[in-house]
Amino acid sequence: MIPFSPTKSIEILERTPAVITGMLGGISEAWITQNEGPGTWSPYDIVGHLIHGEKTDWIPRMQVILSDSPDKKFQPFDRFAQFTNSKGKTLAHLLDTFHLLREENIRVLRSLNLTDEDLSKQGIHPAFGAVTLSQLLATWTVHDLNHIAQLARVMAVQYRPAVGPWVAYLRILQSSGA
Amino acid sequence: MIPFSPTKSIEILERTPAVITGMLGGISEAWITQNEGPGTWSPYDIVGHLIHGEKTDWIPRMQVILSDSPDKKFQPFDRFAQFTNSKGKTLAHLLDTFHLLREENIRVLRSLNLTDEDLSKQGIHPAFGAVTLSQLLATWTVHDLNHIAQLARVMAVQYRPAVGPWVAYLRILQSSGA
Repeated sequence: MIPFSPTKSIEILERTPAVITGMLGGISEAWITQNEGPGTWSPYDIVGHLIHGEKTDWIPRMQVILSDSPDKKFQPFDRFAQFTNSKGKTLAHLLDTFHLLREENIRVLRSLNLTDEDLSKQGIHPAFGAVTLSQLLATWTVHDLNHIAQLARVMAVQYRPAVGPWVAYLRILQSSGA
Repeated sequence: MIPFSPTKSIEILERTPAVITGMLGGISEAWITQNEGPGTWSPYDIVGHLIHGEKTDWIPRMQVILSDSPDKKFQPFDRFAQFTNSKGKTLAHLLDTFHLLREENIRVLRSLNLTDEDLSKQGIHPAFGAVTLSQLLATWTVHDLNHIAQLARVMAVQYRPAVGPWVAYLRILQSSGA
């Protein structure tokens, strides 16, 4: 286990745009548009979801926690916003947008020089109730890794029939689905 | 699903070194050396495993399949070689080694201009028996994605306590373990 720290988190957060662009930038349309079946997301959908998180989730919720307002309730996050917001946009455009938003959000995060007292301040999550700023920022970090793993899985499952008997050795093909 | 093709596979294979370097290059030691518990691999171990695959698995097995020799048996792959081979090496060195080996292996793969007839040729896997070249090359591709997902998971689980109640929403924290 690694104890939470803003520095350790930023190490992951600042790498994610390049990692995702490394996986998807310039690749064939087929790898980008296929999903894992009805109700699941394609790589294209996942990038749109990450953009929506940069805009409406992590930093706005941090600002709710740190604000002087007594109302600490978070806005619910829209998990389906990307289906309208990404419409008509190329993947290259989405990747650029994600890079820029993430860069700015890390700049904001760094500029706050969060203290331990700040990190223990709370907001009210729509489902969980009281959560701390450190939990929010740790979740932002793990959320990136979650979607990197999901991208790898969505792409891998497209080749499930192609690997033949090796399916038995490839854990990524055992865990797929909605 | 995406039908197997060497071209579609190379699109993944050629991206993997940069993706993995993007995830791990220059990051804190803690993110690199922790694993998921006894018997599991750290990011450092995983990069060593990928190197051993480049040296002894994919291309050598392809060469067995395509050779004129009647002996089509593959050498068993050593899943633990990295624990001795990586000793004393920095992660930066391992990442560079993986880049170079992969680049050379893709050069070899491209130079063969594999035909459909080549892709249907068979070798003998120690556990599965007869497998085709297309299955081997598809597996090489999915194997990359499998380990990218594993890297993300190994890193994510270090923050499991840190995310608090959000563990319930983060699928990557539900699937961990040896």
